[in-house]
Amino acid sequence: MNYSLVFYIIGWVLNLEAAFMSLGCITALIYGERAGWSFLLSILLCLAIGLPLTLRKPSSRVFYLREGFVSTALSWVVLSCMGALPFLFSGVLSNPVDALFETVSGFTTTGASIFSEVESLPRCILFWRSFTHWIGGMGVLVFLLILAPLSGGSHMNLMKAESPGPSVSRLVPKVRSTARILYQIYIFMTVLEIVLLLAGGMPLFDSLTISFGTAGTGGFGIRNDSMAGYSVYLQVVVTIFMILFGVNFNFYFLILMKKGRQALQSEEVRAYFLIILASVLLISVNIRGSFDHFWQAFQQAAFQVGSIITTTGYATADFNLWPEFSRTILVILMFIGACAGSTGGGIKVSRFVIMLKTVKKELRQLLHPKSIKKIQIDGKAVEHEVVRSTNVFLIVYLLLFSFSILLVAFDNAGMITTFTAVAATLNNIGPGLELVGPLGNFSGFSNFSKLVLTFDMLAGRLELFPLLLLFMRSTWKKF
Amino acid sequence: MNYSLVFYIIGWVLNLEAAFMSLGCITALIYGERAGWSFLLSILLCLAIGLPLTLRKPSSRVFYLREGFVSTALSWVVLSCMGALPFLFSGVLSNPVDALFETVSGFTTTGASIFSEVESLPRCILFWRSFTHWIGGMGVLVFLLILAPLSGGSHMNLMKAESPGPSVSRLVPKVRSTARILYQIYIFMTVLEIVLLLAGGMPLFDSLTISFGTAGTGGFGIRNDSMAGYSVYLQVVVTIFMILFGVNFNFYFLILMKKGRQALQSEEVRAYFLIILASVLLISVNIRGSFDHFWQAFQQAAFQVGSIITTTGYATADFNLWPEFSRTILVILMFIGACAGSTGGGIKVSRFVIMLKTVKKELRQLLHPKSIKKIQIDGKAVEHEVVRSTNVFLIVYLLLFSFSILLVAFDNAGMITTFTAVAATLNNIGPGLELVGPLGNFSGFSNFSKLVLTFDMLAGRLELFPLLLLFMRSTWKKF
Repeated sequence: MNYSLVFYIIGWVLNLEAAFMSLGCITALIYGERAGWSFLLSILLCLAIGLPLTLRKPSSRVFYLREGFVSTALSWVVLSCMGALPFLFSGVLSNPVDALFETVSGFTTTGASIFSEVESLPRCILFWRSFTHWIGGMGVLVFLLILAPLSGGSHMNLMKAESPGPSVSRLVPKVRSTARILYQIYIFMTVLEIVLLLAGGMPLFDSLTISFGTAGTGGFGIRNDSMAGYSVYLQVVVTIFMILFGVNFNFYFLILMKKGRQALQSEEVRAYFLIILASVLLISVNIRGSFDHFWQAFQQAAFQVGSIITTTGYATADFNLWPEFSRTILVILMFIGACAGSTGGGIKVSRFVIMLKTVKKELRQLLHPKSIKKIQIDGKAVEHEVVRSTNVFLIVYLLLFSFSILLVAFDNAGMITTFTAVAATLNNIGPGLELVGPLGNFSGFSNFSKLVLTFDMLAGRLELFPLLLLFMRSTWKKF
Repeated sequence: MNYSLVFYIIGWVLNLEAAFMSLGCITALIYGERAGWSFLLSILLCLAIGLPLTLRKPSSRVFYLREGFVSTALSWVVLSCMGALPFLFSGVLSNPVDALFETVSGFTTTGASIFSEVESLPRCILFWRSFTHWIGGMGVLVFLLILAPLSGGSHMNLMKAESPGPSVSRLVPKVRSTARILYQIYIFMTVLEIVLLLAGGMPLFDSLTISFGTAGTGGFGIRNDSMAGYSVYLQVVVTIFMILFGVNFNFYFLILMKKGRQALQSEEVRAYFLIILASVLLISVNIRGSFDHFWQAFQQAAFQVGSIITTTGYATADFNLWPEFSRTILVILMFIGACAGSTGGGIKVSRFVIMLKTVKKELRQLLHPKSIKKIQIDGKAVEHEVVRSTNVFLIVYLLLFSFSILLVAFDNAGMITTFTAVAATLNNIGPGLELVGPLGNFSGFSNFSKLVLTFDMLAGRLELFPLLLLFMRSTWKKF
């Protein structure tokens, strides 16, 4: 382990966080809120640790996958620990575990909240909560822009640990410019959403925070009823943008490069839209009876499906009250998740495409034992290594899922609450069912369960492996 | 597809079933029950179809994996359809779907029942219900004894479709003698249990039916309270035998061959006992408060854990009322299941051992990308093909599981009932939680859901693939 480099990276992460927090400070100044002081104090603490760490240049620039995974995982942990300070200093949360849960939920773009009501919170705190979604959304792509020169060409290491999904095909030869382009798309789409929300008469503060939550597929609301109180126009805009932020960013990149045809042939993106369409139609028919017009049922179904499959977590309806068939579809969507290479969480559509193709291939092979054919995606053969890592991902995912449920079960919160609480955190969604439903929150769990769920949020966001490596002894060996 | 051979096999299956049913007839004679006529009628129908099919020798003896899978799957379907007739003819069930569900539940050694109370049923019906477990338990091993000569040396095909678990290592060079030895072990252990139960003062009829249910890891009870009314001695005997029938039969074979040391080193068997021990201890501590002595909690925990992990399904306590932690452990055990090569169902301990080793290997490889090592079990390298088929099994399993839940959700039975009903049938256990708990039954589901669950029982028992192949067009092509 190249400790000096890892510390150097962590130092820069802290300096950056200080810069991000200054926006919380500015918000407090605008609204004249005393909670602004808690941001100032947090900024000073970040710099007090960050600056010394960045003053000393790393002694070695060796940067392998191991360093990439460890520095990524530690960055998220450190970001979350320091990001929790404003909650504590301002007094809106007194339990450090709660503050950590809320901040990890923000940076991992989960959106699971401790607060039973948010409308009484200071604006600067609400802004910071939503802004952590936006920072988390594109993850370390921004770090890549700054740190890439350090790692001397081997930046794919950091990239691999961070990018959501099994395989980010190299978009352009140089990772650094790729990251910059992805980031520009991200900013452009966020601004577009803000403008469209403003055009619909939404106040600026709401437009900003809700767009941050949409872009990062986070889902922290600034109203107690999440999105239910907004007009249909605003709900539709958010529905569309949630779904757009769940698309593989490769798709937008190809369109930018005027390769629209290739973009439209992406099997993952097609499967993603197909799943959304089928789910929305099935749920619309299933909940039709509770609405005057089919259109209303369709709009509500579309919002909730878009929110869950992209793992955003906004809600315009209490789907706790929907029929079991509709609820079951939503629970299944929780696991499917968004496209790889998007800001969304979950197992990812591309993994499901790979799994389905593996099964089809196996069944064919049973009938024709001599046929040997690699599975293909988008016309290209999928490497054996990708299939294997998809399978291993699934196994680790299921083990972590079962183990988490077992630990959280100590709270006796009810099996559906426990199951969906773990599903909602490990898949970075936010709300689950029953006690943790769209109108509920996570404050009822014990500190122990909150820490388990916090771990799940981090593990889900980092695609399991980087976080697991932190617990292996050989990761920490000097080399 | 070699149709003539498949028909010939089905014919023999029907003739055998007629022979099995004669035991139901004899039971009716002993107890002077009119329901005996329904068995006679069913026997005649079996022979009316079976005899003509077996009169014509198959025109070709070509027997590939495809024929093996198809004839196995069809055998179970035909066995179940004809085995359901006594229920209908005797009038104890009027709905054909119910009769099919009950019979499939018997032959697949599931033990999920439609009956809300069983004590008023004719004895011959109760005997037949439990006897289907015993027939199903060792599956086509008996068919192998009779049919193996037909397939001219390629009997491994049939074996592969039937044997529970990912890899039955060839015990002795010739499958036929292997099957005979396994069958002798099976009979010996059943007789031993009957004797021990009789010694504890259990009536002969109860000893027979309960031993059939234990041997096949089935679980149909003959009392409304399942096993709760029997003495502690009898419960302990059943606990021990349930756990013994969940052990890989390879273990007993090795002991017979005086290779006790090799037997004890089996990683699967060790993991199996370790899981049981850990679960029993955790649950004992968790439910301790409801009992006067720790020993009582331990005994109840051991019975329920043994019943669920081996997928038997007997109960001495309503674990619906246990704390969530204990219930969660039981639900997890439902999925783990028994050892491969036993009469139990579930995903199988050996698959979990393989999966855990795959994950460990992957994590090591992330740190040391150049290390290439095959995973080993019992000191032998596991072939890539076994790992792959384990992964594909897991994927198919999860897909079928999710899809079944979605279909059964239409009944609005509650998400825990739906989830555990699918888990209890796909894993061939019997009882689940809430409405389908140890004191509940499956009669409340719609015919549609019952058919879905019936399919799941068959799919689970046949390790998914043989049944799926029935739905592929190219399976049915002439060659």
